[in-house]
Amino acid sequence: MKSKKRTTIYDIAEKLNIAASSVSRALSNSNHVNEATKKLVLKTAAELNYKRNTLASNLRKGKSKTIGVVVPFINQNFFSNVIAGIEEASYQKGYNLIICQSNELQSKEIKCVNTLINQHVDCIVISLSVDSSDHQHLQNVIDNGIELIQFDRVADELETLKVINDNEQASFEAVSHMIEQGYKRIALLEGPQNLQIFRQRKVGYLNALKKYDMPILDELIIENAWTKELGANATRKLLNLPEPPDAIFASTSDFSALGVLEVASVMGIKVPSQLGICGYSNEAFTEITSPSITTIDQFSVYMGKTVANLYFQEMENKDETEVVPKIISIKPKLLIRSSTQRKTV
Amino acid sequence: MKSKKRTTIYDIAEKLNIAASSVSRALSNSNHVNEATKKLVLKTAAELNYKRNTLASNLRKGKSKTIGVVVPFINQNFFSNVIAGIEEASYQKGYNLIICQSNELQSKEIKCVNTLINQHVDCIVISLSVDSSDHQHLQNVIDNGIELIQFDRVADELETLKVINDNEQASFEAVSHMIEQGYKRIALLEGPQNLQIFRQRKVGYLNALKKYDMPILDELIIENAWTKELGANATRKLLNLPEPPDAIFASTSDFSALGVLEVASVMGIKVPSQLGICGYSNEAFTEITSPSITTIDQFSVYMGKTVANLYFQEMENKDETEVVPKIISIKPKLLIRSSTQRKTV
Repeated sequence: MKSKKRTTIYDIAEKLNIAASSVSRALSNSNHVNEATKKLVLKTAAELNYKRNTLASNLRKGKSKTIGVVVPFINQNFFSNVIAGIEEASYQKGYNLIICQSNELQSKEIKCVNTLINQHVDCIVISLSVDSSDHQHLQNVIDNGIELIQFDRVADELETLKVINDNEQASFEAVSHMIEQGYKRIALLEGPQNLQIFRQRKVGYLNALKKYDMPILDELIIENAWTKELGANATRKLLNLPEPPDAIFASTSDFSALGVLEVASVMGIKVPSQLGICGYSNEAFTEITSPSITTIDQFSVYMGKTVANLYFQEMENKDETEVVPKIISIKPKLLIRSSTQRKTV
Repeated sequence: MKSKKRTTIYDIAEKLNIAASSVSRALSNSNHVNEATKKLVLKTAAELNYKRNTLASNLRKGKSKTIGVVVPFINQNFFSNVIAGIEEASYQKGYNLIICQSNELQSKEIKCVNTLINQHVDCIVISLSVDSSDHQHLQNVIDNGIELIQFDRVADELETLKVINDNEQASFEAVSHMIEQGYKRIALLEGPQNLQIFRQRKVGYLNALKKYDMPILDELIIENAWTKELGANATRKLLNLPEPPDAIFASTSDFSALGVLEVASVMGIKVPSQLGICGYSNEAFTEITSPSITTIDQFSVYMGKTVANLYFQEMENKDETEVVPKIISIKPKLLIRSSTQRKTV
C-alpha cells in the first residue's frame, strides 16, 4: 500500500490560492484573519484530511517532548530492561523515546549523539560504549542546552545527572560472601578498565581481600574477560596454573560467568565444591543453569524508571533554587545461588 | 545542571527587532532579504548559539525521517532483537526510531499508535498485543498517509506491508521431527488463538499428526499456555493424565518449554527418554538448560533489518509501477537439540 503524501498548510494554501501564513493563522484561530477565510480554510483542511502536527507545534515552543537514548546494544538484557523502564515512565508524561545503539563504538556513539542534537530532543540519556575515551560529544549536548543524563557506564568528570549502581559495594559483598564460604584463592575476571564501572568492581574485589587479610595475587587477575568466549579462555588459563584458583568472580558479566561454568563442566571440575563461580547482572539464564549462578541484580527496569523520573523532576524544579540530587546510586543486590554455596547452612 | 532554553528564530527576531519571517529567510539564504539583514542575522544567530533544527526542517518538507515502532515488550528477547535490526538498517539511512511498548494491552497500543500519528512519523512498524481484536487504530495509520508495516503478530485482513515467519511450516517440521524420534503422544501447548501466529502453529501441529496418521487427541491440546507459569501448570495437568503424553510441543514460547522442563525435572521424568520437549523462538537460555532445548529460530535481528529495508525499498519505488512484494515470509529454522533426541543417529 503506497502511503499518500501528508497534507500540509501549503497544500491548503495552494488550493485556496492564499498565503500559507493566512492558512496558519486561520488554523490557529488567530484574530488577524477574516471569518470567511477562516471558515474556508477549516472546510478545506477537513476535505484534505489535514492533521495538526503536534511535534512541529511542540518544536515551535522549543520543546520536542522527546528523550533520546543511546546504549551499546538495544538487545542486551540489561539495556533493554533499562529502556523498558524509561519508556514506562516517559509514556506516562507524554514523552517519546528515540533509541540509538552505539554497537560499543565511540565513532557510532558520536554520530548518534549528534543526530539527537539535530533532532532537538529535550534530553539525551546515555550509557557509554566500551571504547569511549574522549567526551567532547557529551559536552556538545550540554552546550546545546539539552539535558544530559548518564547511567551505568558514566564519564565521572562530566557534571551531569547520573544514575549509577554502587559497583564497588556490590563486588565487595560478592567477594566477601565467597571468602565466608571458605574459598581461599579467588580469581577476578575484570572488564576494560577505561570504564569506571569495571574499575569500581575491581576496587570492591581488592577491598574484600584486604579486609580478610588475603593476599592479592596478580596471576589470578585476568584483564578484559568480559564476554562468554573471553571468560572461557581466562578460565582455561586459570585452571591450568600450578596453583589454580578455587573460585572465580566474573565481575564483568553473567556471560563471562557462563563461560567459566562451561569450561569447568568440560574439565570435570565440580561447582561449587571444587570451584565457586559468581557473575554480574542477573541475566535470566543464571537461574536456569546447573548449578544456578550466584550473581548481582542491578534492578535494571527500576534504573530506567529512575532515569526518566530524574529528568521530569529536574524539569519541574527548573526555576526553583531547591537542590535536586545530581547522582542517584542504586544499591545492587547479591543473589546467592548454588554456584558459590558449598557450606551447608 | 539546568539546561538552557534553546535559541529559536523568535529570539533572534526579538533581539534584532525584525520579523521572524525575515530571520527565517535570512537563515535559509533567500533572495527576498537584503544582504545587510542577512549578515546581521547570521552574526546574531552565531552569538546566541542558534542551531538549525533538522527535524523541523524535515517536517516542513512533510518528512520526519522517523520510524515509530510499537511492540508488546521492549525487553523481550525476540522484540529487542527485531528492534536492534530495525535500528541498524534505519541508522544507515539517517532515520530515527521512536519506540513504544503496548504491554500486551490493546488500550495502550491504541494510545501509542495515536501518539506516533500525531508525531508525524513516516512509518509505523507494529507487532500486535495479545488482546488486539479491533484494528481501527491501524486503519487510522493508513488513512493518515503513514506507511504501516506489520511484523510477526499481524492483522491478516489489513492490506499492509508485512514481515512474518512461516509459523505453520516451522511447527509442522518440529512435530514431524518428534514423530520421527518415536514419540507417540505429542501434546500441544497453544497460544491465544486470536493471534494468527498461534493459529498457524496449531495448524502445523495438526497437519504433521495427519501426515503420519496419528490421532488428534483433544485432551493433549492445552489452551493458553504461553508463559513459564502457564506452561508448568499445563505440564502438571498433562503428566497426571491416565495416559500422559510422551512429548510436549510448547508452540507458544521457550519460556513455556522451560516451564515444562522444570516440572518434568521436579517429577523425576527423564528428558528426552521419557518426555520430549520442543520450544519456540530460540531464546538464548535454550542452549544452556540441561538438557538443551530443541527450538525454532525466527532470525529476529534479520527480521528487523528486513522490516526497515522493506520500507526504504517501498519509498524508492513510490512513483514506479513496479510491483514490490507486500509480504515477506522468513522461513524459521528448527534447531534440534538434546531435549527431543532420543534416537541415536
